[in-house]
Amino acid sequence: MRKIIIGVMGPGDSATTADLENAYALGQRIATKGWVLLTGGRSAGVMEAVSQGAKAAGGLTIGILPSADTEGISEAVDIAILSDLGNARNNINVLSSHVVIACGMGLGTASEVALALKNSKSVILLSDDKESQNFFRNLAPNQVYFATNPEIAIQEVAQILDAEISELNQR
Amino acid sequence: MRKIIIGVMGPGDSATTADLENAYALGQRIATKGWVLLTGGRSAGVMEAVSQGAKAAGGLTIGILPSADTEGISEAVDIAILSDLGNARNNINVLSSHVVIACGMGLGTASEVALALKNSKSVILLSDDKESQNFFRNLAPNQVYFATNPEIAIQEVAQILDAEISELNQR
Amino acid sequence: MRKIIIGVMGPGDSATTADLENAYALGQRIATKGWVLLTGGRSAGVMEAVSQGAKAAGGLTIGILPSADTEGISEAVDIAILSDLGNARNNINVLSSHVVIACGMGLGTASEVALALKNSKSVILLSDDKESQNFFRNLAPNQVYFATNPEIAIQEVAQILDAEISELNQR
Amino acid sequence: MRKIIIGVMGPGDSATTADLENAYALGQRIATKGWVLLTGGRSAGVMEAVSQGAKAAGGLTIGILPSADTEGISEAVDIAILSDLGNARNNINVLSSHVVIACGMGLGTASEVALALKNSKSVILLSDDKESQNFFRNLAPNQVYFATNPEIAIQEVAQILDAEISELNQR
Repeated sequence: MRKIIIGVMGPGDSATTADLENAYALGQRIATKGWVLLTGGRSAGVMEAVSQGAKAAGGLTIGILPSADTEGISEAVDIAILSDLGNARNNINVLSSHVVIACGMGLGTASEVALALKNSKSVILLSDDKESQNFFRNLAPNQVYFATNPEIAIQEVAQILDAEISELNQR
Repeated sequence: MRKIIIGVMGPGDSATTADLENAYALGQRIATKGWVLLTGGRSAGVMEAVSQGAKAAGGLTIGILPSADTEGISEAVDIAILSDLGNARNNINVLSSHVVIACGMGLGTASEVALALKNSKSVILLSDDKESQNFFRNLAPNQVYFATNPEIAIQEVAQILDAEISELNQR
Repeated sequence: MRKIIIGVMGPGDSATTADLENAYALGQRIATKGWVLLTGGRSAGVMEAVSQGAKAAGGLTIGILPSADTEGISEAVDIAILSDLGNARNNINVLSSHVVIACGMGLGTASEVALALKNSKSVILLSDDKESQNFFRNLAPNQVYFATNPEIAIQEVAQILDAEISELNQR
Repeated sequence: MRKIIIGVMGPGDSATTADLENAYALGQRIATKGWVLLTGGRSAGVMEAVSQGAKAAGGLTIGILPSADTEGISEAVDIAILSDLGNARNNINVLSSHVVIACGMGLGTASEVALALKNSKSVILLSDDKESQNFFRNLAPNQVYFATNPEIAIQEVAQILDAEISELNQR
């Protein structure tokens, strides 16, 4: 029976201190909810912090690596999917996630948000960057959610999942 | 000897009339310059219009299709690459292009611009959409160019190619 | 900390009764060993049978689906990776597996065995098909193992994993 | 209007002298027929030889590279598609080819033959290796052709294309 997977995307080396703190808290809360965490799997920035947070709370973590081997993989990844697809793996990240949270913003993250929205996924932007809020709200007004802290982001994920389950039951 | 490939990305069904006119003119000018055109290959929106423009001027056109077969392919595509990768093929589109022009904006196009910049490519935004200009300039100030019409976009491509060739010769 | 993943590949609709029985037994034994099972994820043939076997023994199951959605997914898949890559996902299947077992033979399975060997993986052929044994032994004599039943296949996996761990410790 | 693309697959560094001679002759004949050549694009073995042959006869050559850049690319490739997919690009090679010729055999080539047959393509084996003939004939008896020299292989391609065009016209 398919488990619920929450994808957390965010910058690697260019992550801010706030991004890292938010990511760690997201990981803890995702694990506490009993959801599986999915990231890009590398030992850098948001990927590393959110995976560490999830493991600290006893969660299960998936990393979809861009490479063919485990060089640069986060120690906090349980399930390593070695895609050897480079950035093309970003599409797999978002397709495999029930809901996507963007924690901070960067070029890779921007591609993942765009691909998630293109694939009809709901995306939560956890960031105070006005440019990215305006840009993505303009492109997909009904699929983009905003959160100012991890707690709100997790509440929004829960509401989105509830709405989807409710919709499935009504069919 | 590798030919110069210019990628033109843009909306499919949601392309505006201005996008389509710009795309057709871009295709003509790319072909006249002797460059090869690369698109997403479908018979819709910017992909169709730019490919038609290139063929009208005697150019060579490549289409990187998301599908495993040729259903929905533009009649103006000479070289059909059937990727069966869905939107993951967007990364191939930008990697294979020397320079990327975004003609209009949409979710697929946004993912391609982000992936192109992530891969250190220069990108020209041919659009008057302020949100996308602000968003991408903020993320990659030195790689993003703006154009208000196809003629300027092609001039910028020529300058970028000249600068790259000049840089290669100086090594 | 990365878990050990064993990939079991095999025919879908063209699986024989023996293939299905072998697959179910492999799944049970993989779960009992504490390894994670990876398959192509569809509710057909060897993928379905081995996943059912693993779940019956309390294991964790990953399915790398060729599609963008969960249509046709096995109910026995816990972690659904929706690749939307068609058969290109076969390369991810083998890269992500510590050891690959081919249970039966078919065109998709043949591509996975070839890709696994190309990527320097060890592959166990659980099949009495002489043509495939001769073909792959000829191409990669030091990486191909043969098994006549699931018990022997699992013993071989354990030996391969022991040898790899021993090699890592000696560095 | 889509051009006819013939894919020639074969070993890189492990190609035999006979493979290289056959590949060069295949490239010449493909170009003379007016078909476009598609290969894996690297400057090694069959890929290099067949591309050189095609260029010597004035043909157009496509290379689907496994990498994100042009390092290791054949000088005889006109259209470089930079996939950054590693061996997952093998599926694109065969999907994009109207007919596939395997010139020699190796692990990568074996995966391409299997993927081509899986995708309902016709494949010509130009090799005297009995193991591969037996293996693939057994898996897909109606799609595998054998050739003992390049001239016969090209005749078979022409016949396959004629039959496909005839079938399309009868619909």
